[in-house]
Amino acid sequence: MSTVMPPTRGLEGVVAANSGICYIDGDKGVLAYRGIDIHELADNSTFEETCYLLWFGKLPTRRELGDTREALARERKLDPAIVNLLRQAPRKALPMDVLRTAVSALALHDPDEKTNDRDANVRKTLRLTSQMAMIVACYDRIRKGKQLAEPDRSLSHAANFLLMLNGEPPSKTAERAFDIALILHADHELNASTFAARVTAATESDMHSAITSGIGALKGPLHGGANEAVFKLLESIDQAGADPVEYVRGMLAQKKKVPGFGHRVYHTEDPRATHLRQMSEDLGRSSGQPKWFEYSRQIEEFVKKEKKLNANVDFYSASTYHVLGIDTDLFTPIFAVSRVSGWTAHVLEQLADNRLIRPRAEYIGPPYPVHYTPLERRS
Amino acid sequence: MSTVMPPTRGLEGVVAANSGICYIDGDKGVLAYRGIDIHELADNSTFEETCYLLWFGKLPTRRELGDTREALARERKLDPAIVNLLRQAPRKALPMDVLRTAVSALALHDPDEKTNDRDANVRKTLRLTSQMAMIVACYDRIRKGKQLAEPDRSLSHAANFLLMLNGEPPSKTAERAFDIALILHADHELNASTFAARVTAATESDMHSAITSGIGALKGPLHGGANEAVFKLLESIDQAGADPVEYVRGMLAQKKKVPGFGHRVYHTEDPRATHLRQMSEDLGRSSGQPKWFEYSRQIEEFVKKEKKLNANVDFYSASTYHVLGIDTDLFTPIFAVSRVSGWTAHVLEQLADNRLIRPRAEYIGPPYPVHYTPLERRS
Repeated sequence: MSTVMPPTRGLEGVVAANSGICYIDGDKGVLAYRGIDIHELADNSTFEETCYLLWFGKLPTRRELGDTREALARERKLDPAIVNLLRQAPRKALPMDVLRTAVSALALHDPDEKTNDRDANVRKTLRLTSQMAMIVACYDRIRKGKQLAEPDRSLSHAANFLLMLNGEPPSKTAERAFDIALILHADHELNASTFAARVTAATESDMHSAITSGIGALKGPLHGGANEAVFKLLESIDQAGADPVEYVRGMLAQKKKVPGFGHRVYHTEDPRATHLRQMSEDLGRSSGQPKWFEYSRQIEEFVKKEKKLNANVDFYSASTYHVLGIDTDLFTPIFAVSRVSGWTAHVLEQLADNRLIRPRAEYIGPPYPVHYTPLERRS
Repeated sequence: MSTVMPPTRGLEGVVAANSGICYIDGDKGVLAYRGIDIHELADNSTFEETCYLLWFGKLPTRRELGDTREALARERKLDPAIVNLLRQAPRKALPMDVLRTAVSALALHDPDEKTNDRDANVRKTLRLTSQMAMIVACYDRIRKGKQLAEPDRSLSHAANFLLMLNGEPPSKTAERAFDIALILHADHELNASTFAARVTAATESDMHSAITSGIGALKGPLHGGANEAVFKLLESIDQAGADPVEYVRGMLAQKKKVPGFGHRVYHTEDPRATHLRQMSEDLGRSSGQPKWFEYSRQIEEFVKKEKKLNANVDFYSASTYHVLGIDTDLFTPIFAVSRVSGWTAHVLEQLADNRLIRPRAEYIGPPYPVHYTPLERRS
């Protein structure tokens, strides 16, 4: 029997599932995957190890880690039909639209397309995690008229992505920075894209449907799309030769939202921002482009003082990715390249103890019954 | 500040949004679109008129209805890239996977791809509603090695779909039956696919992302996928020459779920089943294939008596679609061809008063903090 509760806008604070994946304390600024603090993971772990942790609930042994790396590396191959799809996409298309379409198309060529059991879903998890990175890198080269770069199966996931994007292996600094960025973005409990993935999976649809839903939701500027909006802001300031604080003051005066600030869950500093701020500063300095960090820092201090809002994960990822040489419209696809690890972990968890996610709406339309008026009597 | 409530499995009975689109009384078996009872709509309306009602909140005037029909007919054209994508899909692919991919790809060719305002979204609504039907019909002909059938802009949406599917215009009876089926499936409040679409749209992502999420969620056998499962059951009974009641009794003894029964919201007869039962009977008789209705009727009576479960919308749509000559694996895509009208209505409503849909999870994993163990100390 249904017991209808008062509507909660955006399900704020409503518990929609039990989950053992991500622990967040929004008041203390704590984020942990499977109980391990994000700071310890950022300092010590790799993306592959973090994937294992998210998927299987514990840190891998040496052998398990080797197997996971190998399995991800083995999947570094794209069906020619997918490469063809990328080649046929208009070059001005939004990369997130292309990624969503290509990931949906991966299902058509997946040997487990018609199977939805746990083993098949673990195989799909490895394929999707490996191949989403390739799709983003390949599409970027295709739209720029560049030759595709061959994957290198001896490299880490982070290094292989940067190789396939740039056509040359990354420096150790860039590889480690990107690896940390992948760790930081990997999961965040029931964020909107993960929730979309779980709602989709809970009908007992398939992994590709769920991840496609996740990509579609991540695209929005109220979610992953915010990192692109942050860099566009920094660029506008730079092009106008404006003072960052005055520029943002003007935005606030016009009641515009400043992208990259505030979070539904954190009421203090987003622990991911702590790392990304440091990375933005270090990489900005070492790459000889310190200005993006400096603009960011000034904006952060001003917005915190004026609006009591903290920078979130998107704010410093913008300047970090830019100094890593990544195009602005790839920031959100790169978020997806990381978050697929969390989405797949949540789908596996959802299916292990599944129930259809089907809430109710509070009806606020014309009171029932309104009678059908024949066409000739309508005005 | 978040106030965390006890978890409700599958958000059962939790109000996730206010909505003026669909009124349901699950105890009395009432379903109404914008306050108008589904029975009055099934008896009097057309799919195009119902679309207008769902999208704009009232029955159209003669002129508004004419404009809507014309706008839908005008969009009966598929970008050659989409036809190409359908031709390149493996012929054994699941039609729902192909539909999800093609709808995602429509975004790449949509003139409003980069615009998310209401006017653009109304245009996308018309395009998606018109073209999803074409995608389903065209893919079916392509996989069967048949020539594509040209659309006829003078026909109703229902008749044009059947023309493009079968290569010849439908009888008046088939057209009307299909039109009623489209009306009955058009919306159903916050069902899982609509909810997935709203969660996606609420990040301020785009209409195509939202509808792609809806398709992915609808595919699952706990949702739209059930109508295919129902017909597979009827077919198994027929092939085994079994008694339908004995067959289903055997399933229940093995604790198998009988597809097409029970509903999260209705605790009495699903009002859509009332119409579909009648259609199944009438069309079965007039097409000289009464057995599918007869099997269905026997199963329905038995399951109701044994399990106190009512037939839902999927149960009689299976036999109805079959006698209309539609392949089993197109039943769920056809559900999507109808439900896109509701999905788009919900996305328009969500964006008119948007808030990010971001619930919480109750953490049940290893208690924080678990410390990071270096690789060499793991066992």
